[in-house]
Amino acid sequence: MKVTLSALDTCESSFTPLVVLELAQDVKEETKEWLKNRIISKKEDGGAQLLFRPLLNKYEKETLENQNLYLVGASKITLLLGAEAMGLVKECNDNTMRAFTYGTRYNFKDFDDDNDDFLTMAECQFIIKHELENLRARDEKMIPGYPQAKLYPGKSLLRRLLTSGIVIQVFPLHDNEALKKLEDTWYTRFTLKYQPIDHIRGYFGETIALYFGFLEYFTVALIPMAVIGLPYYLFVWEDYDKYVIFASFNLIWSTVILEVWKRGCANMTYRWGTLVMKRQFEEPRPGFHGVLGINPVTGRKEPLYPSYKRQLRIYLVSLPFVCLCLYFSLYVMMIYFDMEAWALSLHEKSGSEWTSVLLYVPSIIYAIVIEIMNRLYRYAAEFLTSWENHRLESAYQNHLILKVLVSLATLLITSQILNQIMESLLPYWLQRKHHVQVKRKVQALKADIDATLYEQVVLEKEMGTYLGTFDDYLELFLQFGYVSLFSCVYPLAAAFAVLNNFTEVNSDALKMCRVLKRPFSEPSANIGVWQLAFETMSVISVVTNCALIGMSPQVNALFPESKLDLVLIVVAVEHALLAFKFILAFAIPDKPRHIQMKLARLEFESLEALKQQQMKLMAENLKEESREGRKEEEEA
Amino acid sequence: MKVTLSALDTCESSFTPLVVLELAQDVKEETKEWLKNRIISKKEDGGAQLLFRPLLNKYEKETLENQNLYLVGASKITLLLGAEAMGLVKECNDNTMRAFTYGTRYNFKDFDDDNDDFLTMAECQFIIKHELENLRARDEKMIPGYPQAKLYPGKSLLRRLLTSGIVIQVFPLHDNEALKKLEDTWYTRFTLKYQPIDHIRGYFGETIALYFGFLEYFTVALIPMAVIGLPYYLFVWEDYDKYVIFASFNLIWSTVILEVWKRGCANMTYRWGTLVMKRQFEEPRPGFHGVLGINPVTGRKEPLYPSYKRQLRIYLVSLPFVCLCLYFSLYVMMIYFDMEAWALSLHEKSGSEWTSVLLYVPSIIYAIVIEIMNRLYRYAAEFLTSWENHRLESAYQNHLILKVLVSLATLLITSQILNQIMESLLPYWLQRKHHVQVKRKVQALKADIDATLYEQVVLEKEMGTYLGTFDDYLELFLQFGYVSLFSCVYPLAAAFAVLNNFTEVNSDALKMCRVLKRPFSEPSANIGVWQLAFETMSVISVVTNCALIGMSPQVNALFPESKLDLVLIVVAVEHALLAFKFILAFAIPDKPRHIQMKLARLEFESLEALKQQQMKLMAENLKEESREGRKEEEEA
Repeated sequence: MKVTLSALDTCESSFTPLVVLELAQDVKEETKEWLKNRIISKKEDGGAQLLFRPLLNKYEKETLENQNLYLVGASKITLLLGAEAMGLVKECNDNTMRAFTYGTRYNFKDFDDDNDDFLTMAECQFIIKHELENLRARDEKMIPGYPQAKLYPGKSLLRRLLTSGIVIQVFPLHDNEALKKLEDTWYTRFTLKYQPIDHIRGYFGETIALYFGFLEYFTVALIPMAVIGLPYYLFVWEDYDKYVIFASFNLIWSTVILEVWKRGCANMTYRWGTLVMKRQFEEPRPGFHGVLGINPVTGRKEPLYPSYKRQLRIYLVSLPFVCLCLYFSLYVMMIYFDMEAWALSLHEKSGSEWTSVLLYVPSIIYAIVIEIMNRLYRYAAEFLTSWENHRLESAYQNHLILKVLVSLATLLITSQILNQIMESLLPYWLQRKHHVQVKRKVQALKADIDATLYEQVVLEKEMGTYLGTFDDYLELFLQFGYVSLFSCVYPLAAAFAVLNNFTEVNSDALKMCRVLKRPFSEPSANIGVWQLAFETMSVISVVTNCALIGMSPQVNALFPESKLDLVLIVVAVEHALLAFKFILAFAIPDKPRHIQMKLARLEFESLEALKQQQMKLMAENLKEESREGRKEEEEA
Repeated sequence: MKVTLSALDTCESSFTPLVVLELAQDVKEETKEWLKNRIISKKEDGGAQLLFRPLLNKYEKETLENQNLYLVGASKITLLLGAEAMGLVKECNDNTMRAFTYGTRYNFKDFDDDNDDFLTMAECQFIIKHELENLRARDEKMIPGYPQAKLYPGKSLLRRLLTSGIVIQVFPLHDNEALKKLEDTWYTRFTLKYQPIDHIRGYFGETIALYFGFLEYFTVALIPMAVIGLPYYLFVWEDYDKYVIFASFNLIWSTVILEVWKRGCANMTYRWGTLVMKRQFEEPRPGFHGVLGINPVTGRKEPLYPSYKRQLRIYLVSLPFVCLCLYFSLYVMMIYFDMEAWALSLHEKSGSEWTSVLLYVPSIIYAIVIEIMNRLYRYAAEFLTSWENHRLESAYQNHLILKVLVSLATLLITSQILNQIMESLLPYWLQRKHHVQVKRKVQALKADIDATLYEQVVLEKEMGTYLGTFDDYLELFLQFGYVSLFSCVYPLAAAFAVLNNFTEVNSDALKMCRVLKRPFSEPSANIGVWQLAFETMSVISVVTNCALIGMSPQVNALFPESKLDLVLIVVAVEHALLAFKFILAFAIPDKPRHIQMKLARLEFESLEALKQQQMKLMAENLKEESREGRKEEEEA
């Protein structure tokens, strides 16, 4: 059943470079040789069984002096076995989604021994990354040639090589032909059409495809809000009931779009196989450390780390730290308000031009301090989250995003409530962004040349690294905040957001394709903790909208005698809306019915298979026992 | 693999009567013969393959005249195959929980060919009930002898027999020996100890064991509230901050006990196997109807009913109906208040004794009207829920409970807010309950005699039927309402509830064991929609407690100038508490870690088994193809 092959045999004939490994300039030959051996040697010998060769020069003939660029590829069979080990899920001929196994490869749709398209290039690169990251130390005590780079059994070699600066970077190569095809259907012609999400997924992987899918979905979903907000701005409607209609629509809209996204997302990720893929059964993320032991679920040998220790770290260190930072940032904000009040009083007293300039000083200082604090906080959050030692990449990402969001969302909400300047800043900010985009475009087009492999590698290794979808989602999250939190105050926010996102799609696409290094694909089944963040924001928006309506002068005019009645009515309405919102979210199923059925079918089949397996095992045991019994009788 | 046996062969030797079938007095012989044949004939012939014999008279010799009582039993192998078909989960020798299969029976703990304790008696009776209910019509157009009792292929025979009045009832027999043992450890000696939940589960099944488990857990959990509430009552503390402490404690308490119960419940039901049992893969509940087709998940032939039709029925009929009833009940309440105000004004005007009696008239009328409305509503709710045609018993129960609760909870909350009479009624109500218990005890002891089988059957068939756990849970739910909704108003509520529940355990136990017919066991993995109901109540309790504190004179005295400030502060605190509550519920995992691990392990193993199965299938296909290929070659 176990399929193996000599990696070296097929090396030269079918080498497709997929991933580039850049070493430091002065790495010793001894180390290079050892690394090469570990990468190409067979799985049984603790290797990664990949293909590995130095980058040749422009004319594809000679190696370079002081060689430090290497290409990594893999034979087809290594990739297929890797896909099996990663638990990649593919569509079968009978239209079900099943975990790929090499043994059943002919059952899968589009599989053919001569066909290289079965695994997407993004998947191949992901598999190679995984194989490289899971090269683990055996009996080495250190990296050969570098006595200070200590190793212990089970330590990820690549991680140690990166932290000791021997390996500079590992990145996947672009495929210029496929990239051009993708660009043509994606963003080069400016027309109103849906993005080719499936192609994006094939080239960049599920995480990035989901981001673009969400960006598009969110933009389309904003259009009704933009259309409804427009007359509020144009005709300066200020009636009480019109406000209430807008806010109520906003509430239902924000609940429904988030629920519908979940369903759409399940549809997409089911088709891609990541909904069914069981990532929790995979090997841990490379940053995970612990004592080598047996995973009680999968029975595989891997580092183990007790979950109570992680819980202790989260609740005793990370949580108090985040709370402290929150308190501190609110404190700084209070200082800012004091400063502003002081500047204002000074200006009112003297009224000269100098003091009118002084009015801006507190804002400038505050902006700088906040920026510095934010950066420090993000470093701290990354450090803490990695120290919490999560086993799965998704858990790590979720905890990191939560930490950063808690701080940012608080700043956003409090500063928005108290800061009306935003209204004038928003158009300026969009303008500035546009400039940045144009600049980037110019820089990017340089990369668009028909280059040799050597030129391509040298060019791409200098490109910036894509740091993940965090900042992209954050931008959408802030937009969602503007649109839903203060819908009545900024009725135009949705319209601005739609306009912005139409260009955002293109600039993000350009960024991914031409400006940055190609990122490794990362399978994911949903947008993770962002869903929770958006949902929390939409709950908060009920509160803020009710408060804004209650504070508006038109509504106050309706209750000239008793503010108390007004507040009580507003609070009652708010509670009713919140209850309605929760019931609505509860009543809309998270997965479409046909997906639910397919998942249930898979569960049923696998439980039946387990029963069958147990039955077979038992029958074999009985046979063996009776055979032994007979033997004993014969011997007697 | 398929194990069959002639049911009649082993009939007389090992017949243990488990279930009683009572026919109407005048059922035709032809019908009795047909029914008997269907029950004892083999599975292949569309029978239930059970044992079946008439009840003999006192001396166990002769049959009775006009025989209408029959005993149903089953051979051991039928029961084991039934357990496999139901997907019962049992513990294996390696301490994992697995679905029982006959083929792997020796892998299971305590299984022995000579041991009859492997399946509990409750499970045996549950299996027999299931087999009887799943006797389905084949080509019969009607029940022989009753042309008006129409049948169609797939219709449950037992259900038609019950609706046409041919079968009066089907009930499981008590086992006096086991019952006495259970009673001894359960309630006969009044000592403070935990109930023998595992024994209760063995005798009555999981649903009832979970009720008693929850009753005990809830009573113990109430003790801290009772202890804290006591000094508030005794010393008449009326300080603002003491109230707030009590209310905050109440909030945390109600959240934590509900979350901890989920974990404890998962622990219990994992041990019992029902947590792992996949009831959604089972056959539909007998009341379910639809066109005969293939279930897309299990591939079994069974009635199908499109879910969109059910959704339409729920949202277009049931939901508007429930809302209408709610509106109507609130309307009636308003009339009641008008009447009371009118009676009060009349009394104030004249002040005679006659008018003081008149003061009670509105309350009496209202109580009667509410009682009638409640009964009508419950019939309607049952009719609607059964018309919604849910496939699973649990879904049916959940929708029914939700409908009834929505109405009752609204009445409870509104009437409590506006009605202070309750405070005096509560002790009286407990007193009256105690009387009922004593009466019941006397009636119950009659059953406790060493009776022959004939006497036992005749006695038990006249006993009342247990109508499910609804009313028992409802009582706890109302208690929870008293304790959490108005903690500051009734600080003694928890103490009363604890006292009541100590006797409640015993009276409920007595009721189950001696007063009522033994109920059929019903496997369940949790307390279902009651968990949701209790959680919703605890959310509402945050709102009511904050409102009560805000309305208290002591707090109002703190804000002599501005009621507005007071309301705003109360609302802000309330929102913070609600947010804290949701975060707390989110942070406490629903299942203990070791259960999570075991469930993940099961999922992993079954997915691996599915892969193996696919691989084997594929290898066999290949072998066959190559064999055919060779044949063709040879022929050529």
